[in-house]
Amino acid sequence: MSELIEKCSIAKIAGYKLVSVDTITKNNALEAIARALEEKAEEIIKANNIDIDNAEKNGIRKAMIDRLTLTKERIKDISEGVRQVKSLSDPIGEVVKMWKRPNGLMIGQKRVPMGVIAIIYEARPNVTVDAAVLCLKTSNACILRGGSEAINSNKAIMKIIQDAAYGAGIPEGALNIIEDTSRETATQLMKMNGYIDLLIPRGGKGLIKSVVENATVPVVETAAGNCHVYVDSDADLDMALKIVLNAKTQRPSVCNAAETLLVDTAIADEFIPMVFNALKEKNVEIRADKKSKSIFSDVNDATDEDYYTEYNDYIIAVKIVDGIDEAIAHINKYNTKHSEAIVTNNYEHSQKFLNEVDAAAVYVNASTRFTDGFEFGFGAEIGISTQKMHARGPMGLESLTSIKYVVYGDGQIRE
Amino acid sequence: MSELIEKCSIAKIAGYKLVSVDTITKNNALEAIARALEEKAEEIIKANNIDIDNAEKNGIRKAMIDRLTLTKERIKDISEGVRQVKSLSDPIGEVVKMWKRPNGLMIGQKRVPMGVIAIIYEARPNVTVDAAVLCLKTSNACILRGGSEAINSNKAIMKIIQDAAYGAGIPEGALNIIEDTSRETATQLMKMNGYIDLLIPRGGKGLIKSVVENATVPVVETAAGNCHVYVDSDADLDMALKIVLNAKTQRPSVCNAAETLLVDTAIADEFIPMVFNALKEKNVEIRADKKSKSIFSDVNDATDEDYYTEYNDYIIAVKIVDGIDEAIAHINKYNTKHSEAIVTNNYEHSQKFLNEVDAAAVYVNASTRFTDGFEFGFGAEIGISTQKMHARGPMGLESLTSIKYVVYGDGQIRE
Repeated sequence: MSELIEKCSIAKIAGYKLVSVDTITKNNALEAIARALEEKAEEIIKANNIDIDNAEKNGIRKAMIDRLTLTKERIKDISEGVRQVKSLSDPIGEVVKMWKRPNGLMIGQKRVPMGVIAIIYEARPNVTVDAAVLCLKTSNACILRGGSEAINSNKAIMKIIQDAAYGAGIPEGALNIIEDTSRETATQLMKMNGYIDLLIPRGGKGLIKSVVENATVPVVETAAGNCHVYVDSDADLDMALKIVLNAKTQRPSVCNAAETLLVDTAIADEFIPMVFNALKEKNVEIRADKKSKSIFSDVNDATDEDYYTEYNDYIIAVKIVDGIDEAIAHINKYNTKHSEAIVTNNYEHSQKFLNEVDAAAVYVNASTRFTDGFEFGFGAEIGISTQKMHARGPMGLESLTSIKYVVYGDGQIRE
Repeated sequence: MSELIEKCSIAKIAGYKLVSVDTITKNNALEAIARALEEKAEEIIKANNIDIDNAEKNGIRKAMIDRLTLTKERIKDISEGVRQVKSLSDPIGEVVKMWKRPNGLMIGQKRVPMGVIAIIYEARPNVTVDAAVLCLKTSNACILRGGSEAINSNKAIMKIIQDAAYGAGIPEGALNIIEDTSRETATQLMKMNGYIDLLIPRGGKGLIKSVVENATVPVVETAAGNCHVYVDSDADLDMALKIVLNAKTQRPSVCNAAETLLVDTAIADEFIPMVFNALKEKNVEIRADKKSKSIFSDVNDATDEDYYTEYNDYIIAVKIVDGIDEAIAHINKYNTKHSEAIVTNNYEHSQKFLNEVDAAAVYVNASTRFTDGFEFGFGAEIGISTQKMHARGPMGLESLTSIKYVVYGDGQIRE
């Protein structure tokens, strides 16, 4: 039997057993995992060094190697993250609502695990811990498939997590990592209908595209973010400036950073010089349309391609628009349905923007950078969904659950 | 431009406009649709006759032709169904919850349309109306693709619906039917990423399989139902008999009818003759395991294949099991996660069954036949989901919605 089929099979069986594991046992297992990660940090670092050596030999670029690297401090942070998940309340078993039908049937909607969750991810080995413990907390069996660059770290981490969790009463088979990191196996994983109840890809465009095209199991698409800030005619320009700078420069590499600035023509003469000078001071490359350049010429040209691009870098595209309708039309055409902000003091415009912009999160007078499970108060995040089905926006514990109707009768039959 | 791309494009644009259409306008449109269907019943019947003629020429079997046939009475029923949907409360715009973060951000979870919903279905032309009005009520644009057998009926119905809806203020392009009923076009529809936010197949195994294998857009899988009734050692046998007969024979052709009966060995000597005689009286073919046959021999043999089969007919598979654990294991192995019932007066067994059986709906002391949007009190049903993602069990209006986070700030930036 292939590794994949074997692990899918044991995960499925473990998934059924996990339904009956109580929260106390799960929390004890999470505490045991947190402790084991700290105690065995040396082991993890040793395995991680092999991955780093390989990465250096393969000429992987520095930023990637930094993301791959685990230190004692980083491991400490990771295990603190596990304790945070432990402290969250367990959504499983909650009866969301219950009602009585005229025939006396009591129908309850109960939160249950998905069953088996597969996660395909790249580079960062901390995702191995995050994903495993979020699945464990929600009574889901997990099948993790990380990238080849981190395989030694991931295997070492998974071994420690398994030993700790199984020792604390979690059914064996609940936690799995696919050691074969070939592309073929990943594609096969995407087609394991009957075993996988939910597949979450976490990574770059290439991975997401491959999953969307190949997967036959249910998928939640995550996290491309081509986000906009629109500065309306009625904006407080000082507030707008702060929000644009924050959304673009506070952490440009992440999906909720802004990529395009839209400015209403009515305030462009005043705002464009303000914001361009401030962006330049922060070393942001500006790619602007002709109208903006007629106000402030010392910037590059924006092409249509730019408006489609998620730079994840110190680059911003700019366009002057003729009112809120053009702003909304531009956003709905070019965005990836992630996070969009308007800066305005106009009530009607704020409501129109909130209603008509199609995105997981729409903001009035705040930075797009808040789209995040922690910032939203969910206490955890498995990713940010950019699809509308099942989960949208930051995915907390609830997005790893399904529901089941429990029906209490006393002999009802249908007439 | 192909018909498909053209209709997907106009549906997408209409989807954006539909977000801003208020409930009053939608309800007026639904009333106009109901009235138009009644007034133009002759037109529909004329088109339907062409389909029936073709079906007869093609030697389609009688039961199928009956499902295809529209009469004045059936059209009246269909338009009453439209008025029922009108009377339901509109889920769109509801803010499910809203909370305040420590930094003052107010975050609300608001119910929004999916956008564009595609539905691929077979035979029955009443689905054209059902699907169109459920999408309309939830502000979704729809793209319907019915079977070739009903294409004339479907086109006539859609024309009437469009005229009525657009005349009542619904944006043009909101309601679409694909006139090209080729398999290639259906497969292409399953891959229209960027246009289709949700695809729901309604039909037989072949259709569902094709959608699961080919679709790259988000899908909700519906409605194969291999349902079980388990009669526990502590069952009230009279109640059990009524429930088994109802679940099997009240309407055997539907997905929530029972296909397999499991009987606890402790009560088998008493219950097997009772239930077999009663089933035979209802002309149900019994396919039983050896143990059952040793009690009541005049029945057919059950194979492993039988336990996997959704008969949708007057046939039942039977197996005697050694206690609730074997019953649950059997169900979780053979079922399609649809509807499962236990008959028992044992408290512990009832809870165990509700917790451990993996299905959209689990029943204690009631017939599986209640798994239905109307019986559950949702007032409508677009299908019954047998997957765990997004929607599970009977899908009412809420399952045609997504959420969006609306965030109210006063200048918040992320530190």
